[in-house]
Order: sequence, then C-alpha cells, then structure tokens
Amino acid sequence: MAALTFSLQHTDTNSKARAGEITTDHGTIQTPIFMPVGTVGSVKAVTQQQLKQEVKAQIILGNTYHLYLRPGIDVLEAAGGLHQFNGWHQPILTDSGGYQVFSLAANRKITEEGVVFQSHIDGSKHLFSPEKVMDIQRSIGADIIMAFDECPPYPSDYSYAKKSMELTHRWLARCISRLQDTEPKYGYRQTLFPIVQGSTFKDLRKASAEFVAATDCDGNAIGGLSVGEPEEMMYEMCGLCCEYLPEDKPRYLMGVGTPWNILENIALGIDMFDCVMPTRNGRNGMLFTTQGVINIKNKRWATDFSPIDDGLECESSNYYSKAYLRHLFVANEILGLQLASIHNLAFYLHLVKEARKHIIAGYYHQWKTDIIPILKQRR
Amino acid sequence: MAALTFSLQHTDTNSKARAGEITTDHGTIQTPIFMPVGTVGSVKAVTQQQLKQEVKAQIILGNTYHLYLRPGIDVLEAAGGLHQFNGWHQPILTDSGGYQVFSLAANRKITEEGVVFQSHIDGSKHLFSPEKVMDIQRSIGADIIMAFDECPPYPSDYSYAKKSMELTHRWLARCISRLQDTEPKYGYRQTLFPIVQGSTFKDLRKASAEFVAATDCDGNAIGGLSVGEPEEMMYEMCGLCCEYLPEDKPRYLMGVGTPWNILENIALGIDMFDCVMPTRNGRNGMLFTTQGVINIKNKRWATDFSPIDDGLECESSNYYSKAYLRHLFVANEILGLQLASIHNLAFYLHLVKEARKHIIAGYYHQWKTDIIPILKQRR
Repeated sequence: MAALTFSLQHTDTNSKARAGEITTDHGTIQTPIFMPVGTVGSVKAVTQQQLKQEVKAQIILGNTYHLYLRPGIDVLEAAGGLHQFNGWHQPILTDSGGYQVFSLAANRKITEEGVVFQSHIDGSKHLFSPEKVMDIQRSIGADIIMAFDECPPYPSDYSYAKKSMELTHRWLARCISRLQDTEPKYGYRQTLFPIVQGSTFKDLRKASAEFVAATDCDGNAIGGLSVGEPEEMMYEMCGLCCEYLPEDKPRYLMGVGTPWNILENIALGIDMFDCVMPTRNGRNGMLFTTQGVINIKNKRWATDFSPIDDGLECESSNYYSKAYLRHLFVANEILGLQLASIHNLAFYLHLVKEARKHIIAGYYHQWKTDIIPILKQRR
Repeated sequence: MAALTFSLQHTDTNSKARAGEITTDHGTIQTPIFMPVGTVGSVKAVTQQQLKQEVKAQIILGNTYHLYLRPGIDVLEAAGGLHQFNGWHQPILTDSGGYQVFSLAANRKITEEGVVFQSHIDGSKHLFSPEKVMDIQRSIGADIIMAFDECPPYPSDYSYAKKSMELTHRWLARCISRLQDTEPKYGYRQTLFPIVQGSTFKDLRKASAEFVAATDCDGNAIGGLSVGEPEEMMYEMCGLCCEYLPEDKPRYLMGVGTPWNILENIALGIDMFDCVMPTRNGRNGMLFTTQGVINIKNKRWATDFSPIDDGLECESSNYYSKAYLRHLFVANEILGLQLASIHNLAFYLHLVKEARKHIIAGYYHQWKTDIIPILKQRR
C-alpha cells in the first residue's frame, strides 16, 4: 500500500471541485484542506493545543530551509523528528526550501548540482541539492516531502521559464531516486509530492504537468503561482495543470491565497492549500471573517462588543469581542497577535470545511458564486 | 455583609503564615494567592482560557493608569466594565495608578489636590486625584479598588517619607469618602484596600499601619516595598506592618516578587501578592521551575527533550520540552513568549497552592526552609 492514499468521495455538479480523504501514517485529512504554515516548527503565535481545538487544523506545514538552519538537523534527529520536537502528532508536510532559498537567502547561485546560498541569519554558506533536501526532509520526518524545485519569479521570459522547468524536472528525478535509496527514520512512512512549474506559459505548464503526472507519485503540487501574476492568470494556469494531473491523486496548490482564491481554485480541482496570509495579515490586524474583511485597528470597532466572528466554531472568535481585540492591537498587546492568528486560521479551516460540505451536497459552484462577494466586502 | 469577606482557616505552627479564603461577588480566592498582572486588561501573551485552565489564576490585576489611557473609561463603561470587556469573570483588583504615575508618566507634579501628569503614550495632560481615581475604578468595575497613594522611591530621606506618608493618609480619607458617596455601576459590590507607606522607617511604617488598620476596610495593602531596598529590609518592614494590620483581614504585599520573596513574606503573614516578574522575566527567557531558575536560551537546553517542568499541573509546562521552548526563543517565535509566560505564572500559582497546603498541614516553616534553596538554584 502507498504511504499516502487518497479516496475521492464526491465531485461537484457544476465545477471540478472534489471532496476526498487523504490517509497518512499520522492520520487522515479531509479535503479540500487548508494547511497552516509552521515555518520554524511553530505556527506563529498559536499553540499546538489551540491549533487542534480552536483552529481544527488537520495538517500543518514546516519549512525545510528554516528548520535546517534552526534548530538544525542534529536537534531534530535527536528529538526523533519534528512531530516529537514540536508536539504536533497529526500529519506534517515540509516545503522543500526551494522557494525560501530564492526569497530569503543571500548570494544564491544555481547550478546543475543545486543551489549554494548564504543563511539569512548568520551568512553561513550552504548547498541545497535535490539529494541533500531529501535527506533533510527524511530527518525532519515529514509525512509529505516536497520535491526540490526552482521557483522562477513573475514575470519570467519564456526561455528562462523553460530552462528552469527542465532543471526542476531533472532535480525531480534525482529526488525520486534519492528517496528510493533511503529509508524513513522514525518508523512511519513518508511520501513525495513533485511540483509542476512553467511560469505563466501554457505549453510549459502542460509539459510540466505531464512530466509530473508520469512520475506516478502519491500526490502532486503546483508551484510558481501567486507570485505576482494577475489572479485570472493564476486561475488559468491552475485549471490547465489540473487537466493534466491525475484525478485519483490529491492536488496541492502551493502558497495560495485569499479566501476567494481558495474557493476559485477548489472549483478547478485543487484539494490542498497553504499560505502565510491568515497569520501574517492577522498579525497586522487584518481579519478574514464570515462577513467580510476587517481592519480591526479601525476606530469603528472601539465599542463594537459583538464577537470577533460568531459565524464559525472557534472559541476565541466567539468569546472575545471586536472592541477587545481592537484594544489589544492599539495597546500593542501580544494577545492581539494570538487571537487574530487563531481567528484567521479557524476561518480558513471553516471555509474549506464549508466548501467540502457544499461539494458533497452537490451545489458548490452556486454556493461559491454567492459567498465570494460577502467574503470580499471590506467592513 | 461586607463586599469582601475573609475567613482565616489555618495558621502555621512555626511562622505567621495563614491559609484563608476571600469571598467576593465574582467568586472566592484561596489564600495565600498570587495575582497575575493584566496591565492593560490582558495578562501579556496569555488568553483568559489559558489563565483559567493552565495557570489556574483565581484573581487578576488591572492597572487604573493604563486602562484610563487605553481603552479609556468611556469604552469600559460602554462594555459594562472590565470583566465584560476582557472576558475574565473571576475577581479583578485594580492598582490605583499611583505607582504608574510615578514610574511611567512624564512631567508629573504632586499637589495636595492630586497629581498632574502627561501620558507616556501621547503626552496629553491629566489629573489624578483621590476622587478621580475612585471614580475610574468604579467605571473599571474592579472587585478590589486600591487607594490612591504616593509611592516614595528608595532611598527616601525621613522627612520626605513622612510628608509623603501623611499625604497618602489624607488621600486615603478622601478615597473612603468618595466611595461612600458613590455606587458601584454594574450590580456587584466593590471594596477598598488602603495602602501602608512609610518607606524604610520603622516608626513611619508602624504609624501608617495603625492609620490604615483604623479605617476598618475589608483588606489592607503594603506598598512602597520591593523598590530597590535590600531583601532583609523588605522582610523587616513587611513583618512590622503585619504586626499592626488586623489578623482577620487579608494582607496584600504589592509588587513582590521572586518565588522565595513570596514564601518569606507568606511566613510573615501576607496573603496576597502581585508582580510582573513571572511574565516579564518569562518573556526574556528566564523560567522559574520546581527545580530552580533556568535561562531557557542557554545552549545546554538545545537537546534536553524533558518537559519544561513536570513538577506542577500545567499542560504547557508538561507538554512542551525545554529544547522546543529554547528553539522558539532562539528563533524569536512569539509562541516562546506565550509558553514561558504561561509556565511562569502556572509555577507561581503552583507555589502559593503548595504553600497553602503546607500551612494547613502545619509545617509551612520547615517546608519553606527546605524548598527555597532548590527554587533559588541556577541551572
């Protein structure tokens, strides 16, 4: 049996939205799903208990780049892997570090072998190769390992995008080969998700999706979107990739996005999402709610004693008032960052749960069309 | 019946330590007790749920000075008081703002009438008089209101300390009179604790304690200690005040202190404590544990996967490892501040609960003597 299995339960009548279930050795995940980002082994400002009880997360992300630098692989191995280290015992997916190397590290140099870069923390020099990155993810102990890829910026010209995609494909073959040659370290199975690249060029996206699909991995990812391109272009590329990625495997759209981005991409056939937006924007006082987008720092909330959001099941969202949360932000209290992060994540998880419910009921497309204008309104 | 009642349950055999129970309209408090400081209506980095379930707080503090400036009295009144505003429905005590006006505000000028000062936030000018401060605490809705006092610095010369104490006494009379002329605003009762001052002069402390005792309030406080004087002098002054403060009323030592300070002052007859130390030092990585004091940022904890502290009942302290908490501090993760704050507060509450247990068992003095060297050790 595969390390990760996917059962497709329902497909929407008027869209390509799907409801399914992923099974891993650390438990099941009901899709479509949003995965909170726990960059350095901690979803910023949220405890593992709150993630479970309030956010109702089913899987979280870790970042290979960050975890490799801090706490370091020796510490993670001594702990028995990331699950043991941070106390999150449900599934974990690790980003390969490809994106972080290009967005955070200094003096990076790409060769066929891999990427040489300097740490953004202390300037120390490191090499990430496909083999090295697979070894690191073995040591982290992620349930889902992401392939090492190059994520070209937007816009990229065709020839760069093509060269970059081809490199990503060659690296993918090396990732697969390395994983075949090595074993998981902690007694449970790990699986690889390859990543479709190709920037905003249809023929490249098609070629990359076909290449990726042919590897017959347990799940597949689409990278290099939501990097500055217009939303319509993201949807076009995503829809195109979904056409060529197998239906019986989960599809993961990396780094996306706003609540409405998520709903639109679900309609195209995406099952998994991650994004720092709910936590990062939350820490800046931007709340996504069932009634629209709120800047909680606005004066208008000063005496609004209604709950942050009573349209979803989350103790913090229901218990604390907008006025209190606004006060915490105005007074620079750490508790404000915590409550906003918990709320936004709980909202994202609520949203995908609602999406799933409506896919199963068979009228996802209509529900999405009705709800997006409400979610988008600025209050 | 008084707004606050105190029943003395046990007194230690070989010290003046007492176990008692305070009853207020927001519930009971078992003494000796430590009160987490919620300066601006939030115990920094800790949710109200965590305060209740993990820290096991029974009463928290608010600060009149801070709450008056932010969110402001109009907001607190519109909310129906601080309990409604922040969702803490157990007892609340508010500091009078005397100490903050002297330590935080700019250009303060003391007259018989009160103190004119400039806000540390926006430089705006305000007057705090005994009457004004009582009115503010009525609006905050604290269960226990502190008298408006002047807290002289250490060292103070005798004549300044005497003049300051006499002013505090005249202000106390005005506080009592104002509270007699006004009513609680939210349907439950409030009570005043007067404050003993007198710096480090025995005759002043005695005179002040006698003056305070004669007001026959429901409880009494000792202020102006732990402001830089040697520990032995704090204990001497505190012991002297306790001699003159009535036995059948709770005694509150303001702003103290380390775990061993608390145990020593319990032995002198103190029932209530507050201090920012567990949260402030926690945020700097200093942990108080059942096995001594830890700087969690030290390299030595990098691969220590034992619980933060399994010697007390607190989910966070038991669940997360020292290595993980160290990693969170090294990586500047907000979660580190949260876990350290929860742990330190839970430890302080554990300590006073243990103290109470040993007072009731009749061998507090011996237990304290044995445990202080363990608590003080640097690990």
